[in-house]
Amino acid sequence: MARWEPDAQDRLLRAALDLFAEQGYDDTTVIEIARRAGLTKSTFFRHFRDKREVLFGGQDLLNGLLAEGIANAPGTATPLDAVEAALDAVATVFTPARRDYAPALVAAIANNSELRERDALKRTGFAETMTAALRRRGVSDRPASVAAWLGVLAFGAAYSRWADPANHQGFGELARQALHELRTTIAELR
Amino acid sequence: MARWEPDAQDRLLRAALDLFAEQGYDDTTVIEIARRAGLTKSTFFRHFRDKREVLFGGQDLLNGLLAEGIANAPGTATPLDAVEAALDAVATVFTPARRDYAPALVAAIANNSELRERDALKRTGFAETMTAALRRRGVSDRPASVAAWLGVLAFGAAYSRWADPANHQGFGELARQALHELRTTIAELR
Repeated sequence: MARWEPDAQDRLLRAALDLFAEQGYDDTTVIEIARRAGLTKSTFFRHFRDKREVLFGGQDLLNGLLAEGIANAPGTATPLDAVEAALDAVATVFTPARRDYAPALVAAIANNSELRERDALKRTGFAETMTAALRRRGVSDRPASVAAWLGVLAFGAAYSRWADPANHQGFGELARQALHELRTTIAELR
Repeated sequence: MARWEPDAQDRLLRAALDLFAEQGYDDTTVIEIARRAGLTKSTFFRHFRDKREVLFGGQDLLNGLLAEGIANAPGTATPLDAVEAALDAVATVFTPARRDYAPALVAAIANNSELRERDALKRTGFAETMTAALRRRGVSDRPASVAAWLGVLAFGAAYSRWADPANHQGFGELARQALHELRTTIAELR
């Protein structure tokens, strides 16, 4: 009989974070993660290619929302307004439940070069997604790319603040604030 | 008797690029690369941890030059002037001999997700290096980070143009030009 799997991805992520914190990323196996989550190895592999990917689930969703946010921004929106709309569009993903394990996720990635590398690729993917979405609005290549990378920097700053247990603002608010700060920064940059 | 190894790293890189183009990255082994370069497997491992790293040699050198360029920029230099100095400082690395295999290197990375990932990490490393070097000049965190990422974008644009066989400008000139274009872009970005 097939096992009922409510939020299998989420359970695997939490199990992985617990194990990485307890015994380190390198010493943790897929089987241990699945067992800790109360799931089988084959369930694990239905959701993730390897143990590294457990920490990077939901990326397609995020990229889709970023692109959608930019596509749906008003016709009058400037490139940076459209990027703000993209960051607003992903805010729904950053729920209080996710925030609970965000500090563990941040720590796991910071402690391992393989995971930092994967994280760098994730951010590059966000930049490429936003650049392409801006291009589809008729923004030319260079401003599209710069606006997209400012969006990535805003995303990163907002995520760090959001993951900090001392901070209680929502992701959307933090992202808008971070982008606003970056807009001020580029206006002053010489 | 120890084998004389003039430019072992360079020979391994050229051998790897040939093999990746001929038979693909996934189907090429370290032993084949070493053999093609006329070297032994143990020589390979004295220079690189694995076959992926062959394409990313010289990164410590580049990071060192970027940091040095920023540190040695005149006291009156703005953050973006200092980034320009960093790009100037790395230009010496981009010799005509390197340019010969640059198109093969660009193609190898573009065709493989593992290599694109490693490349994303390399660029993130450049941004971190330049951010830290700007911070040491007293530039505050946000402008340091934005200026550094603009430097990475300029680096990427300059490298693409430099690797194009149709283009005969030097890397330093291309990098200055790319950074200048980005400065114009951010001044106009809304």
